[in-house]
Amino acid sequence: MTDGLLSPVRAGSGAEAATGDEAWLRALLDAEIALARAQARLGLIPADAPAAVARAAGRITDAGRLAVQARRSGNPVVPIAAELRAATPHAHHGATSQDIADTAAMLVASRTRALILRDLDRTCAALAGLAERHRDTPMAGRTLGRPALPVTFGLKAAGWLLGCLQARRRLAQVRLPVQLGGAAGTMSGYGERAVELLPLYAAETGLDEPVLPWHTVRTPVVELGAALAQTAGALGKFATDVMLLSQEEVGEVAEPAAPGRGGSSAMPHKRNPVLSTLIRSAALQVPAQVAVLLTAQGGAAHERPAGEWHAEWQPLRECLRLTGGAAETAAELAAGLQVFPDRMRQALDRLVQTLRAHGSGTGLGSAQALVDRALAHYRTSGA
Amino acid sequence: MTDGLLSPVRAGSGAEAATGDEAWLRALLDAEIALARAQARLGLIPADAPAAVARAAGRITDAGRLAVQARRSGNPVVPIAAELRAATPHAHHGATSQDIADTAAMLVASRTRALILRDLDRTCAALAGLAERHRDTPMAGRTLGRPALPVTFGLKAAGWLLGCLQARRRLAQVRLPVQLGGAAGTMSGYGERAVELLPLYAAETGLDEPVLPWHTVRTPVVELGAALAQTAGALGKFATDVMLLSQEEVGEVAEPAAPGRGGSSAMPHKRNPVLSTLIRSAALQVPAQVAVLLTAQGGAAHERPAGEWHAEWQPLRECLRLTGGAAETAAELAAGLQVFPDRMRQALDRLVQTLRAHGSGTGLGSAQALVDRALAHYRTSGA
Amino acid sequence: MTDGLLSPVRAGSGAEAATGDEAWLRALLDAEIALARAQARLGLIPADAPAAVARAAGRITDAGRLAVQARRSGNPVVPIAAELRAATPHAHHGATSQDIADTAAMLVASRTRALILRDLDRTCAALAGLAERHRDTPMAGRTLGRPALPVTFGLKAAGWLLGCLQARRRLAQVRLPVQLGGAAGTMSGYGERAVELLPLYAAETGLDEPVLPWHTVRTPVVELGAALAQTAGALGKFATDVMLLSQEEVGEVAEPAAPGRGGSSAMPHKRNPVLSTLIRSAALQVPAQVAVLLTAQGGAAHERPAGEWHAEWQPLRECLRLTGGAAETAAELAAGLQVFPDRMRQALDRLVQTLRAHGSGTGLGSAQALVDRALAHYRTSGA
Amino acid sequence: MTDGLLSPVRAGSGAEAATGDEAWLRALLDAEIALARAQARLGLIPADAPAAVARAAGRITDAGRLAVQARRSGNPVVPIAAELRAATPHAHHGATSQDIADTAAMLVASRTRALILRDLDRTCAALAGLAERHRDTPMAGRTLGRPALPVTFGLKAAGWLLGCLQARRRLAQVRLPVQLGGAAGTMSGYGERAVELLPLYAAETGLDEPVLPWHTVRTPVVELGAALAQTAGALGKFATDVMLLSQEEVGEVAEPAAPGRGGSSAMPHKRNPVLSTLIRSAALQVPAQVAVLLTAQGGAAHERPAGEWHAEWQPLRECLRLTGGAAETAAELAAGLQVFPDRMRQALDRLVQTLRAHGSGTGLGSAQALVDRALAHYRTSGA
Repeated sequence: MTDGLLSPVRAGSGAEAATGDEAWLRALLDAEIALARAQARLGLIPADAPAAVARAAGRITDAGRLAVQARRSGNPVVPIAAELRAATPHAHHGATSQDIADTAAMLVASRTRALILRDLDRTCAALAGLAERHRDTPMAGRTLGRPALPVTFGLKAAGWLLGCLQARRRLAQVRLPVQLGGAAGTMSGYGERAVELLPLYAAETGLDEPVLPWHTVRTPVVELGAALAQTAGALGKFATDVMLLSQEEVGEVAEPAAPGRGGSSAMPHKRNPVLSTLIRSAALQVPAQVAVLLTAQGGAAHERPAGEWHAEWQPLRECLRLTGGAAETAAELAAGLQVFPDRMRQALDRLVQTLRAHGSGTGLGSAQALVDRALAHYRTSGA
Repeated sequence: MTDGLLSPVRAGSGAEAATGDEAWLRALLDAEIALARAQARLGLIPADAPAAVARAAGRITDAGRLAVQARRSGNPVVPIAAELRAATPHAHHGATSQDIADTAAMLVASRTRALILRDLDRTCAALAGLAERHRDTPMAGRTLGRPALPVTFGLKAAGWLLGCLQARRRLAQVRLPVQLGGAAGTMSGYGERAVELLPLYAAETGLDEPVLPWHTVRTPVVELGAALAQTAGALGKFATDVMLLSQEEVGEVAEPAAPGRGGSSAMPHKRNPVLSTLIRSAALQVPAQVAVLLTAQGGAAHERPAGEWHAEWQPLRECLRLTGGAAETAAELAAGLQVFPDRMRQALDRLVQTLRAHGSGTGLGSAQALVDRALAHYRTSGA
Repeated sequence: MTDGLLSPVRAGSGAEAATGDEAWLRALLDAEIALARAQARLGLIPADAPAAVARAAGRITDAGRLAVQARRSGNPVVPIAAELRAATPHAHHGATSQDIADTAAMLVASRTRALILRDLDRTCAALAGLAERHRDTPMAGRTLGRPALPVTFGLKAAGWLLGCLQARRRLAQVRLPVQLGGAAGTMSGYGERAVELLPLYAAETGLDEPVLPWHTVRTPVVELGAALAQTAGALGKFATDVMLLSQEEVGEVAEPAAPGRGGSSAMPHKRNPVLSTLIRSAALQVPAQVAVLLTAQGGAAHERPAGEWHAEWQPLRECLRLTGGAAETAAELAAGLQVFPDRMRQALDRLVQTLRAHGSGTGLGSAQALVDRALAHYRTSGA
Repeated sequence: MTDGLLSPVRAGSGAEAATGDEAWLRALLDAEIALARAQARLGLIPADAPAAVARAAGRITDAGRLAVQARRSGNPVVPIAAELRAATPHAHHGATSQDIADTAAMLVASRTRALILRDLDRTCAALAGLAERHRDTPMAGRTLGRPALPVTFGLKAAGWLLGCLQARRRLAQVRLPVQLGGAAGTMSGYGERAVELLPLYAAETGLDEPVLPWHTVRTPVVELGAALAQTAGALGKFATDVMLLSQEEVGEVAEPAAPGRGGSSAMPHKRNPVLSTLIRSAALQVPAQVAVLLTAQGGAAHERPAGEWHAEWQPLRECLRLTGGAAETAAELAAGLQVFPDRMRQALDRLVQTLRAHGSGTGLGSAQALVDRALAHYRTSGA
């Protein structure tokens, strides 16, 4: 259970499963096991030690108990390491809590990012399809909430696509490194060949190799958080437009229908724009979580701060699972979005009349060329 | 389980238990039952209906399933109401989802606030004790991180006390009303005597009676959030000072020792200031959550917004449980804080030498009188 | 000039003038003069010293130069105090920079709050008028952006009124105390009767008397910030509704027309909802500024922090002038709001048809009674 | 004047001058002139029109008046365009306000970024020098505020360097495109060869060419804001460490001395860590400003939102000038930082004794190798 009752945007999503306490505990243990493997490859611990660590790790499953124990030391790795070491003296060899906690966070981030990128790709593909199919579908463009000039629905979809593509590129670029510094960032405890451990640990985890231990150089956390917030915002823009365009008075698009979706407990006549509502709820929450990460970065004292590090964990999780839930929801919304060119045409006709009455132009400008431009960009983006 | 692995400040705390999915589901059901009771008192539904609602509610326990179902409608009340109505037609009578969701949030807030106020009272009592006992204990006051002029430790504790008292007063003052508006805030669905239901519903829940339905007049949420953030900040100030004063180079206070507390996974020689670290981790997170609530307030469109309402739930929960965890932790820290007047005296002696070399005064000013002033304020505060 | 080019919501407003560098410098000097007066009343400095301080203060007018000089000490009071002392040795007697800077901030806050309360009163009066006049004007209530059930426009206006009234009450309640602690908060430097200075200084400035010096007990700052954000949010809710209701497709209200207002540089046919846009721009910015204040509260180390205090100043100013600009704008919007009952009726008729087709009720519930309730609350609120 | 009295971190800085109302007005006019030039190159307007636009622009200098006029339309471009057009009909040809306002923002950003990158380079060079000179200078590493294990000061400086380098790389990478979409983003109004205008406009301004008009695809704004916040945070980490290491009780580094710097208005014996205080004040403010930008991104409705766009301007300016001020301050701090290896040695000796008493290792691990690694990274970074 992952406290999803108040966060339907990610309830039951892949990102929720990938970021819950169970998954995070799994990642903490994976980080310990991978460390043992890397150390065994370098001959720092016996060749059979990793298997022993893995066996001991397999017996650690009670995240709730560890959470409470974490209060004694301030982080959940201390009780985990104690249990592993009780099983085998080669576990957690040379490590400090933060090595494991940060590496685990990057593992969770890496796994969740893969889901988000997949859902962004699905979303982009659907939006590109909309842009292409509606390249020539005219509608009223709206500024400050009122009809302004003609646009095409394809151009609108192309804008959604571009925002998502740019967020995807940023998110994919973020480097997610292992953490390996030992108690004070000198890699003391990892032996004389400590620096050689860095690429091996990276290889065992599938994460990036850092330049330095980053205990208090929080670049990976803030770059990840910012990219996630940019993603949530790009999806939020799409959802905001859908919510507004599907107002009954506008009626130019509708969310995909599904049995039971959009139902109201009090009003059987009403279908709510649930998917865009959920996406918007995420886009409204993620920016504040990133502000916590950014503030913590600047206060990351000495070799480990007393609070700023600890304040990162839950906001980073929220960034991952809210954005992940939003991406999964957006993929569904984009794939099933219903478009009503006739309603668009009606509003456009009213607008054109007004424009003519003012002697203003009514052309589409370069709308179609711009759609083509966005689609060409999409096709070469490798997304 | 409540996702506490990344939030040790509240892991295992009373506030955690009071705000988890299980407790929230309980509050949602309590809101439904109380509504039935109020309606039965007014004769709107049969006298035995509330018992039927309560029985049906007793069978709803799977928050995880409801969370996923909530994706269809955007909130968890829709599936709950459907189950209750399947059991008895008098359940959820006239209600809209938001009536139940908001009332439940206020119930959770009320229950958690009681815990927080209790822990603030314990904290204040301990801080008042420190202020009194150390009314005449001189030490170096520090500004911008360096010794400035003599103060007393009593005055420092009096400052912590005052901040907590002021936050307590604000928090206690926040009105937590029931929500009862029906689908669009007119109380339509509650019958002709709908307005009479308001005090009855308030009485059944123990919550306040609102002036109007507050579906999109979010005063209760933002006032509560702001008071919680003020509380977290007052506790954070206390923790920040303890963390700095317990630096080895300063050594003027120490956190209460406990078996296993403050241990490091890599450094047996070291005792970490765990309690202040945990409190600070909360104080760094809560302000951003409140920013979400405040932003949502301004965008609460029409009679219910598409996203802003939904974006409130998890941040409000975080405000409650982070502040609750911080208060519980602070009560322990304040009660057990170790004070070392000798170390204070050493730093003070160095400072006094410097001050004399500059021909500056070295007196304590009105430090003691100010402590007395703060204690008098405390004693009359009713806290 | 006050950097208003990027902040039209407050450009030229009373709050802008009350919070600019010139006004802030004036308040800093007023705080010095009032301190001298209070000290002279207690006989701590000669009876003619305050006049000398006031004369010297009159010659200090170059805020730009002081701003640059402030870089040397970190705050603008150090160069001001140096100039005053050069003129008379009784200036800045016993004071620390923060005594003057914080008192000046409270003076600015007090002066700006008076403007905001005045504009809130104008806004509330206009909204109460709308609620009364349209007590019986039916329209479609909308949830999640679509028509839900009938409401009255009076009830909508009553909701706007209630949010503003509740914010007004909170804002009016915030205590704005003088700061008087001397270098480390012991009032050392203010002599043996220092505590007696507190009520005198409060009287001279018109501010409240604090319990203790609040150098690092930042209750006044966070309570003020939170009340301003609540106010901006209450106004933002009103503006959001106006912006949505004035969409061309809805057309149920319109902003007051004025020559040149709402013009577009590219579209002569279009009238933009400028007033609600400006108010919304403020409501979107203030919450983040408050998060800075709240975060700084928790990190306010020792007797003065190295950064957290300094980080408060500009965000507090933004809270004051954005909220002030929003209130002034909202008063104009509320007073001149155009309401179109016919358009409301059309949308309502469509909704009623839909409701009937689903066999749902179409009544107004207790809408009118709720309006009466809100108006009664308004009349007894003393606002 | 730029309201610098409350923001000493940027008072008198290059970034302040580059972002004030005067500079922003200059950029708005530059955007109009460059547009005319690009249009003339394409033959859309006469060859002598740009000169006429430039002449008319030269007469527009009163930002304060324009700020107030901006209230009528919601943005300052409308009155500017009106004045230009009164002088020459070819001014603002086909443009919408947002084309000019967004392009001007990117011009300001580009100019300010150049200053920030220059100051980051100075900072990095100084930090690299510290890392190199102190590669072998041992000191106590500190975690959670207490001595943990030996490190080198070189490694600490290398960490500061790495954070700044990574922020620099991100900031330099952000694409700053011209905006050119016309009233609704179709480039209508720019004629049939509108798309050809994009590279010409980019060339005339020195900005990047966008894929699409980005009126409501706010990637440039959020990527810029995030990179600035990352930069402020990297500088804040450096400042936080300096502030803590320069505590009197620690005394391992000191800020560069300068006449009058660090003075207190009340305490002649005291030297305050002013530069790190100023930098920290910026690092505490920027994250919240970015949260505004990110929230606005998700709400950027249709072809132009009613408030979200307007809410970006001032926070973006604050991001630029706070980070710019912090970078300029950090360059001075890094270049003049005083390091006291003897004090480091004393703390280290105490730590080593403790470690030995616990039978713990006292080695430096791979500290030197890690410094070399960071310096190699720096040398190949091209910074």
